[in-house]
Amino acid sequence: MEPNCPTSSNDYAADISSIRQAQVRIEPFAHRTPVLTSETLDSIAGRKLYFKCECFQKGGAFKFRGACNAIYSLDDDHATKGVVTHSSGNHAAALALAAKLRGIPAYIVIPKNAPKCKVENVKRYSGQVIWSEPSMQSREDTANKVLQDTGAQFHYELFQVNLELLVELGQGTISLELLEQASEIDTIIVPISGGGLISGVALAAKAINPAIRIFAAEPMGADDAFQSKINGRITKLSEVNTIADGLRAFLGDLTWPIVRDLVDDVIVVDDEEIIQAMRLCYEILKIAVEPSGAIGLAAVLSNSFKTNPAYSECNNICIVISGGNVDLGVLWNSVNK
Amino acid sequence: MEPNCPTSSNDYAADISSIRQAQVRIEPFAHRTPVLTSETLDSIAGRKLYFKCECFQKGGAFKFRGACNAIYSLDDDHATKGVVTHSSGNHAAALALAAKLRGIPAYIVIPKNAPKCKVENVKRYSGQVIWSEPSMQSREDTANKVLQDTGAQFHYELFQVNLELLVELGQGTISLELLEQASEIDTIIVPISGGGLISGVALAAKAINPAIRIFAAEPMGADDAFQSKINGRITKLSEVNTIADGLRAFLGDLTWPIVRDLVDDVIVVDDEEIIQAMRLCYEILKIAVEPSGAIGLAAVLSNSFKTNPAYSECNNICIVISGGNVDLGVLWNSVNK
Repeated sequence: MEPNCPTSSNDYAADISSIRQAQVRIEPFAHRTPVLTSETLDSIAGRKLYFKCECFQKGGAFKFRGACNAIYSLDDDHATKGVVTHSSGNHAAALALAAKLRGIPAYIVIPKNAPKCKVENVKRYSGQVIWSEPSMQSREDTANKVLQDTGAQFHYELFQVNLELLVELGQGTISLELLEQASEIDTIIVPISGGGLISGVALAAKAINPAIRIFAAEPMGADDAFQSKINGRITKLSEVNTIADGLRAFLGDLTWPIVRDLVDDVIVVDDEEIIQAMRLCYEILKIAVEPSGAIGLAAVLSNSFKTNPAYSECNNICIVISGGNVDLGVLWNSVNK
Repeated sequence: MEPNCPTSSNDYAADISSIRQAQVRIEPFAHRTPVLTSETLDSIAGRKLYFKCECFQKGGAFKFRGACNAIYSLDDDHATKGVVTHSSGNHAAALALAAKLRGIPAYIVIPKNAPKCKVENVKRYSGQVIWSEPSMQSREDTANKVLQDTGAQFHYELFQVNLELLVELGQGTISLELLEQASEIDTIIVPISGGGLISGVALAAKAINPAIRIFAAEPMGADDAFQSKINGRITKLSEVNTIADGLRAFLGDLTWPIVRDLVDDVIVVDDEEIIQAMRLCYEILKIAVEPSGAIGLAAVLSNSFKTNPAYSECNNICIVISGGNVDLGVLWNSVNK
């Protein structure tokens, strides 16, 4: 399969009709987030920019779309006893909120080093917080114990593939909204971590308009997608090191084929570029954006984007601002270094 | 005239048809700002809240609407040699930007104690900065000198009444947008300083729906509108002291009759309540809001609002977030005290 070819419903686990169903499912609950523009940032970038502000999504990040689609896809029998997950970030709050809306309990295992504002979001949405050590082993062990203690029928790990798919479909609704709000978009830049967000966005956007370019924005200290694209296969890293706490996961079997085929290129930026983008988001756009959310702007302003072969054809660029959960003191300390 | 009576076109210097003309005039240039909502803040307030986000207006504050209407109302002869003003805040940036768009010079006299981010906004929009001492006398002397040196034909002070009127009409366009975006609004809470913003908003809103309540939100350390309403006449204060740097001006002859007749009540809050509201805007809404912009939320959450006779009838409340120009370090230091 050649890159950039239009998708058909048979190519991948997800397709545009499933994403449209997800949109109908989550519409009563999720915000239709606004698209902001700024002539000041346009003149800095030398391009027309559109900011799809998922920092204004419920829970402060795009994750609510996927979590809501997953929770409302469960049948009553599976849903009743609640859901369990382990997460250090926005997925935790999103799942807690979706569960609260459906009236079922959410047990959230959180590693002790999670950002404070993300923990507070979980509590705000009535999620029941259970602490674990930061290691993945401790997270999984703790989650399994909670699963046994509560009798919860649904668990992030147990139903991983189905859940991932439902989450990915939910994230894809971003493109459906976006292309109604700004149909002139020719390029979308999306943060990449596990690949759920960009997979959903790319599938939906290219199904609507196959000419749209999709770029991933990835931190230098966690550039597994960049490496994977070069190697032509999933490439995991032995360690990750980036300020972007939401972008430390690796591509999986479900997302890799979509990233391989539909993501035109990966723009890699360093943490300093991310911090400068956070500052611009605050000062010019007047929005709170976490490091992972600012990386798309960092990518647009980076030299690696300006030297990309497709650069001259990217004139109306949407930057997906994936989330806004950054402690004020952390933001200040980052930009004030 | 009784409070709350519907306005006719003969009551005040401004009227709804002039505001509609202003809307047509500024539409090609001004942002139609989004209205954000938050169930978390709704549950804190016990009311449905709608945030009209003028922090996303060009220049980061509502002031661009009025400045744009004023600049584009000038005939070519008056406009060519540019405009002069003295301002420590958002009006300066707004005028500079409007002048830049029309392609005429803007000479901005700025007192040395102005917030840094507001000065940077002026420079960003190609305004020519001339420094003065903080005193009003120094500001006016410096502006007059610039006026003579440049031959600029238009000056904030010289044409004060006409300019104020044009500015007020521009601000009124907020209500026209708002009531298209959220027609269920029954109450609008607006920061009050010189009264231009609330006059425009009140005139337009009550002309469209006379049942809408208009509340002013005012800092305790600069509560001249509150005192004026009690005394039934313009009451100036001998000194002002509030963190809300945009709310230190007093009502004038043009705005007082509208505030007297169309503003249902003034909610007074202290600086600590303003700071808490700024924190909530950042943490929950994910937006940068300056003290003057956060005062409407502070008012909604205040005890003085909860004990207001009309409280039980205010169920769908719009809070006008007037601006977002607050230095990140200042915001952090305020909420971290």
